[in-house]
Amino acid sequence: MNWKMIKYTLGRMLIIEGLLMLLPMIVGLCYQENIFSYIVMIVILCFLGWIMSHHKPPKTKIYAREGFIIVALSWLILSFFGAFPFYLSGEIPSYVDAFFEIVSGFTTTGSSILENIEALSYANLFWRSFSHWIGGMGILVFVVAMLPDSSGSSLHILRAEMPGPTVGKLVSKIKMTAQILYMIYLVLTFVEVILLLLGGLPLFDSLVNAFGTAGTGGFAIKNTSIAFYQSAYVDVVITIFMLLFGINFNVFYFILLKEFRSAWKNSELKAYLAIIVVASLLITWNILSMYPSFFSALRYASFQVVSIITTTGYITADYGQWPMFSQTILFLLMFVGACASSTGGGMKVSRILMVCRYGHSELRKMIHPHSVVSVDMDGRSVSKSTISGVHAYFSLYFILLAISFLLLSLENMDFTSTLSSVVTCINNVGPGFNIVGPTGNFSSLSDVSKLVLCFDMLAGRLELFPFMVLFLRDIRH
Amino acid sequence: MNWKMIKYTLGRMLIIEGLLMLLPMIVGLCYQENIFSYIVMIVILCFLGWIMSHHKPPKTKIYAREGFIIVALSWLILSFFGAFPFYLSGEIPSYVDAFFEIVSGFTTTGSSILENIEALSYANLFWRSFSHWIGGMGILVFVVAMLPDSSGSSLHILRAEMPGPTVGKLVSKIKMTAQILYMIYLVLTFVEVILLLLGGLPLFDSLVNAFGTAGTGGFAIKNTSIAFYQSAYVDVVITIFMLLFGINFNVFYFILLKEFRSAWKNSELKAYLAIIVVASLLITWNILSMYPSFFSALRYASFQVVSIITTTGYITADYGQWPMFSQTILFLLMFVGACASSTGGGMKVSRILMVCRYGHSELRKMIHPHSVVSVDMDGRSVSKSTISGVHAYFSLYFILLAISFLLLSLENMDFTSTLSSVVTCINNVGPGFNIVGPTGNFSSLSDVSKLVLCFDMLAGRLELFPFMVLFLRDIRH
Repeated sequence: MNWKMIKYTLGRMLIIEGLLMLLPMIVGLCYQENIFSYIVMIVILCFLGWIMSHHKPPKTKIYAREGFIIVALSWLILSFFGAFPFYLSGEIPSYVDAFFEIVSGFTTTGSSILENIEALSYANLFWRSFSHWIGGMGILVFVVAMLPDSSGSSLHILRAEMPGPTVGKLVSKIKMTAQILYMIYLVLTFVEVILLLLGGLPLFDSLVNAFGTAGTGGFAIKNTSIAFYQSAYVDVVITIFMLLFGINFNVFYFILLKEFRSAWKNSELKAYLAIIVVASLLITWNILSMYPSFFSALRYASFQVVSIITTTGYITADYGQWPMFSQTILFLLMFVGACASSTGGGMKVSRILMVCRYGHSELRKMIHPHSVVSVDMDGRSVSKSTISGVHAYFSLYFILLAISFLLLSLENMDFTSTLSSVVTCINNVGPGFNIVGPTGNFSSLSDVSKLVLCFDMLAGRLELFPFMVLFLRDIRH
Repeated sequence: MNWKMIKYTLGRMLIIEGLLMLLPMIVGLCYQENIFSYIVMIVILCFLGWIMSHHKPPKTKIYAREGFIIVALSWLILSFFGAFPFYLSGEIPSYVDAFFEIVSGFTTTGSSILENIEALSYANLFWRSFSHWIGGMGILVFVVAMLPDSSGSSLHILRAEMPGPTVGKLVSKIKMTAQILYMIYLVLTFVEVILLLLGGLPLFDSLVNAFGTAGTGGFAIKNTSIAFYQSAYVDVVITIFMLLFGINFNVFYFILLKEFRSAWKNSELKAYLAIIVVASLLITWNILSMYPSFFSALRYASFQVVSIITTTGYITADYGQWPMFSQTILFLLMFVGACASSTGGGMKVSRILMVCRYGHSELRKMIHPHSVVSVDMDGRSVSKSTISGVHAYFSLYFILLAISFLLLSLENMDFTSTLSSVVTCINNVGPGFNIVGPTGNFSSLSDVSKLVLCFDMLAGRLELFPFMVLFLRDIRH
């Protein structure tokens, strides 16, 4: 195990986190707030990071297991330090609460322990939403993209941090791939900010809401989330951008290269759009009597469908009041999640597709035992190791879900709140149902439950493997 | 496709069903009830069966797909005719209700649409509970065991009807295997009847409760289920026998042969017992304050744990009043189910074990990419085709669960009732939570929902494949 390289990479990550805190500090300065907590953290992070990374290790080669460990530790340490601005400023008096809030931010979950969001300072509101933007594409992808890197073995980091069953490189150089991804990310965010400004939102609101959309996070800065703005224009803009950020970024890259056919050949994209259309129409039909017109029902239905399937978690309607059929659709969409290699969470549409096709092919094998059947995606046969990976993912997913559900049940909440709090956190959605529903929050939970959910959010964001690997007995050999 | 052999086997099955109806008819005669409905059905079944099976087909060889189709059609037809005694007697006025009740019986689920069970005639109560006993071991296993069979290809039927990821033959001849299984089944049931009689239960009650235990069904003849008897002795006897009927019958065969070491080498058995002990103790601790003593709490906790994990569904306590932690344990146990090759339903302990070990081995492969890791059970490496089968099972299981959950949500019941009604039916447990909980029933559901749940019960009992195969486009080629 190349511990020196692990230390070195973590050090660089800490410096980046310190530098990223400059932004909320500047915001605080603009609004003449007390920015003492940010100054302290920036100094600590840069100093610590410098100590850990000023000696470049002689051997920079890392393997899959180092990749997993770097990613898992990075996210833990990032969250550990990221929580302090909330805690030191006194605006979130409990450290566990502050930790929950920042884990929810970095993992782009958007579940909150805050009962009154609007009481926070601008600096902290900014840091809270900015954490979505950082976590959406992945901080280590950022490290890979921005810092000089000669090792050439960062692919293991990219693989462990990027969502989806298969992670490829867009171009031959990993650093270039990371830069292209971040450029697309930046441009899309920028366009959304402009469009929100055009809709009459203040600059601050436009920025933070765009961060929440881009990372598919869902932290709002108003207690009533996006419903606060009461604007069909804002709803539509955010719906469209949530949908865009839930798409595999490779598709955008193909579009940039004008390879439209390659972009459209993506069967995951087609399934993703089909699910959104069908689910939106079904819910619209189901809630029609609750709204003045078809378009009004469609506006709220499609916003909530896109918000949940992309695992963003913004809210424009109290879907807890909708009929059970609509709620069930939303509940199931929480599991589905967005496309692979997007900023969205959940199981990912491609994994669901693979499992459906796998089930179908195995059924066919049963009635034609001697035929050779394979699982195809986008016209190509999916490799056995990918299928194994998907099965391993589902196995670990349901084991983690069951254990977390059991631990959360010690809270003695109702069945729906208990189950949905775990489901929404493990899939990085944000809101759940009942106590943790669209009008509720996670403040009433015990510290133990909050830490269990933090683990679920982190494991969910990193697609289980990096965090589960830590539990293996032979990880250090 | 050998349609003649399918017709022939189904015909034999109908005659058996007609003959089995002689028993409730005799019970009705003893209690001087109107047995007209049974006489009509016996005549129809025997006549139809004779028409279909009096010509033995020239080619008796069948393959896997014929096996699936025979099993799927048998269970549908068996239920179709089995519902008529309830319907014709007028005691269940709706045919869909009668169908639901008998499907619940044959699949050993034990979910009921009856609001007042005690209003039924003795003949119908007997037929209802006897259907558990028939369905527990499988009617086709019965056909294979009892009738002269020269084809030697009935293994496909046995495979499709017996629960568990791997079905082996106990002895080289399939017919002998089926006979041994039924002998063990018969003897265990007989011993339970004797023990219940010794506990002071009337003969009728002893018989039907033993049928419900043996098939791990759970239909009671009292509105308050087993709680009616208010007897610790009865509770303990039934707990022990539910536990026994949830064990792989191969274990009993090994014990008969005095191969105790082989019996105990079964890792599924050890896991099954461990889960029961741990779950019972956790619930006992959780409900301690609700009962007068530790032993009283342990009595109710262990009864309910064994009743749910074996998917029987008998009730001695209203577990809906227990704390959420206990309810969550019971909910999770519904999925676990009993051992493979027992009469119990659910996913089966062995599948859960395989999935856990598979997840662990795939994780290890990630950090040691070049090592060869395999999934071991009972000291032997599990074959790749078994692992594929388990994955296919889980894929189809969760797809069916999601679709059924969505369809049931149109009832607009609460979340817990909706989800648990599907979970309890697909796993053949019986009671769920809230509306369909220990003090509730399925009477308030619409006909469409009842038919969806019938499908789930049948698909669950036959472990999905035979029923899912019917949906393949190329099944007839």
